[in-house]
Amino acid sequence: MPILRLTLAYDGSDFVGWQRQATGVSVQGLVESALTRLTGAAAVVTGAGRTDAGVHALGQVASARVSTDRSPAELHRALNALLPDAVRVVALEEAAPDFHARYGAKAKRYVYRLATGDVCSPFERRYAWHVTHPLETAAMSEALAPLLGRHDFAAFQATGSRVRDTTRTLYEARLEEPIPGASWPRGPGPGVASELTFVLRGDGFLRHMVRNIVGTLVEIGRGRWPPGQMAAVLASRERRLAGPTAPPQGLFLVEVEY
Amino acid sequence: MPILRLTLAYDGSDFVGWQRQATGVSVQGLVESALTRLTGAAAVVTGAGRTDAGVHALGQVASARVSTDRSPAELHRALNALLPDAVRVVALEEAAPDFHARYGAKAKRYVYRLATGDVCSPFERRYAWHVTHPLETAAMSEALAPLLGRHDFAAFQATGSRVRDTTRTLYEARLEEPIPGASWPRGPGPGVASELTFVLRGDGFLRHMVRNIVGTLVEIGRGRWPPGQMAAVLASRERRLAGPTAPPQGLFLVEVEY
Repeated sequence: MPILRLTLAYDGSDFVGWQRQATGVSVQGLVESALTRLTGAAAVVTGAGRTDAGVHALGQVASARVSTDRSPAELHRALNALLPDAVRVVALEEAAPDFHARYGAKAKRYVYRLATGDVCSPFERRYAWHVTHPLETAAMSEALAPLLGRHDFAAFQATGSRVRDTTRTLYEARLEEPIPGASWPRGPGPGVASELTFVLRGDGFLRHMVRNIVGTLVEIGRGRWPPGQMAAVLASRERRLAGPTAPPQGLFLVEVEY
Repeated sequence: MPILRLTLAYDGSDFVGWQRQATGVSVQGLVESALTRLTGAAAVVTGAGRTDAGVHALGQVASARVSTDRSPAELHRALNALLPDAVRVVALEEAAPDFHARYGAKAKRYVYRLATGDVCSPFERRYAWHVTHPLETAAMSEALAPLLGRHDFAAFQATGSRVRDTTRTLYEARLEEPIPGASWPRGPGPGVASELTFVLRGDGFLRHMVRNIVGTLVEIGRGRWPPGQMAAVLASRERRLAGPTAPPQGLFLVEVEY
């Protein structure tokens, strides 16, 4: 049976996350149900990353072993016809027989979006964390630098996680300010929030790692902690020293590299 | 009693439109309820334009006569605290005693967004019209030109409207292609839609006028009609000769000028 490689975009607002759960609608569950209906055999779909409830994806990658007479192009169209419009298959192709979306992933790129200003645009409310405190972008950029490279990221792991090896490598960790004139329809109006985007790319991410890093960055941007606190938290490997977990709606899984 | 001038942004997806209706949630109704609760007296809020169900606003303007001890800044904060996050007051100020949001409006600017490509981004589904047919942008730009200036726009008025004078003046009518690299988070993924934006600015708009012009433009962009058809439809003053009404979710009231 051929292995399919699916690239998926989804608006995570109304889902319990990527992973199938006992209750609630998951993206994995939706894709499995649609594939099962199309092929007549129970499909198992494996995602590269398990995005949490409310987290979005532009380029989640999934693999599935299916038996079907349909061409990849037909299957692509048929899947999108069955899925809700909050979940889209943006690409579907036959992969090498040993392709595995999770174990084969070499790097992932996440972005986390902040909306700033007094008033949050209605068009950002589901796609950014609205922070009303003024934020020092230079301090946040400075704090990101020591995260680059290979480190034990235990301090940024979700409480209660039981991962044996908490060492990961970050290839990119930077802050992007908005491109002037390009924020529409995210608010040319007076007082409407502008946006800041954190880009994090690495060989793997612990549960809540991006959101805990962003929560720490915002403490630094607000001036409650000095920029050097990030390196101190990292070195401590103590979750209780990091900032709060940033809310899910600002986080996007943008790309998975193989 | 002072006159307030409110600038409002809203995501129209879940509302019956700007105007209060017998059933359903309207933006006007929400703002009136919030003002009534804050001032203790029944508030009447007048909007510059009556956006239809599903139509969005970045800069709707409304006027209201209220009696309150609160400062404009306090009222602004209190209103946003009471309103759902799909409706935001982006500015609130005391206006001149003769200010009237509807009768005082000198010009309005609307934009209409199209998502193109085979697959519509989940992040566009509520904020653009997804058109899968290839579109000739040069033909659509050519078709827009004869709309500029003072004309009888009866051909683009909603069926059943009874407006005595259907003459309006358009100051701007143009097509904007996406700014390269600026489409995020609207889809860097392969196959995800890019966008086209129509900008229309004029001294007034008939009901469905922008959506009927866009419906006609898409017929021209698809190659079903030549670009010259737009001028012919305009001259005919016959609604039945124009294209279909484009769906509401691509339309944004961006700005009202006084």
